[in-house]
Amino acid sequence: MTAKEPAMPSDAPSAIGRPGSYSKGVARRQEILDRAIEVFQERGADGTSLRRIAGAIGVSHAALLHYFDSREQLLVAVYEHAEKRRDETVVDQPEPERGIDIMIEAANANIEVPGLVQLYSTLVAASLEADAGPSREYFTARFERVREDLEQRLRREQAEGRMRADVDVRHVAALIVAASDGLQIQWLLEPSVELQASLETFGRLLAP
Amino acid sequence: MTAKEPAMPSDAPSAIGRPGSYSKGVARRQEILDRAIEVFQERGADGTSLRRIAGAIGVSHAALLHYFDSREQLLVAVYEHAEKRRDETVVDQPEPERGIDIMIEAANANIEVPGLVQLYSTLVAASLEADAGPSREYFTARFERVREDLEQRLRREQAEGRMRADVDVRHVAALIVAASDGLQIQWLLEPSVELQASLETFGRLLAP
Repeated sequence: MTAKEPAMPSDAPSAIGRPGSYSKGVARRQEILDRAIEVFQERGADGTSLRRIAGAIGVSHAALLHYFDSREQLLVAVYEHAEKRRDETVVDQPEPERGIDIMIEAANANIEVPGLVQLYSTLVAASLEADAGPSREYFTARFERVREDLEQRLRREQAEGRMRADVDVRHVAALIVAASDGLQIQWLLEPSVELQASLETFGRLLAP
Repeated sequence: MTAKEPAMPSDAPSAIGRPGSYSKGVARRQEILDRAIEVFQERGADGTSLRRIAGAIGVSHAALLHYFDSREQLLVAVYEHAEKRRDETVVDQPEPERGIDIMIEAANANIEVPGLVQLYSTLVAASLEADAGPSREYFTARFERVREDLEQRLRREQAEGRMRADVDVRHVAALIVAASDGLQIQWLLEPSVELQASLETFGRLLAP
């Protein structure tokens, strides 16, 4: 993809009524996201307008608005896309046994992707600033999904005697998610903070 | 005013040659911060330029630049100021016995101050986006200070048999800070997340 390539504004005839145009649109969206991830890794999310992002990606501002309603929606899509790519790198490994180990694996994978934790933090902060909007909706749902998945795993671990039974799994699930998020931030600011070993210590606290 | 706060610029006309002008400058700075906290509580930190903040506070842009070099420096000062005011509200209570209880008290006080957790999250995200700058310096130092204070308390608790001895206090300190930060965010997005009860569960995990 280069800057010379014609853009595809929402009223572009080429996108209307032809077979395959939908899947082409999807592919084009993926292309934009792939390139946008690189732009954010180079420049960071802070202070980058939709117009400047379009320029850096090499599409017109109108073309970008065809795929994303706002800068925030684009950033959320970039985050989702980057996370999906991250998951593809660990897909062949066997899933760890305990919930905490899954979170340790995810945290380690996160910090390997340049800019991912920064983008996550920027979007979480944006989700708190507004009562509604793309990041608010995305992160409210995402936190709930991750907590619930973890809760179910922890409940099984308790039932099978692999986790201490005297604590509420809802609390532990929220704590693990919080600890993992917070430690990635602390590690980015101070690499002597032991991300993996600290989460493993949490795992030891949960042993029966 | 603590030793860490920046002195007023030496070329400030109001700070030169008149008795009391330094303390007047300090008082004026406090006044600006008091008003700025209200502005941020009303509007959020996101997308607010220094010029708009000046307008909302009712001072000139030049006056604001006299006290703060940049929008980010002002935001960090607003956060510090708001946190100091928060601490004044709990100053008469006896200090809790355990490190985790001090963090629970702080977390509960944080979420009582409108906009404080939002501002914290925005500034932490900003600190990750840049290799240097006011928020990067402030939060790197702040995390280190909070972790070290907690570490010392936990070490004492271990020595006195009030905390289990088989875990590294450096890990536990980093975990508690991370858990407290992350849970405040989760609670803001989903009030059914039990902030205090979850941190108390962490406390139970640490019991000998």
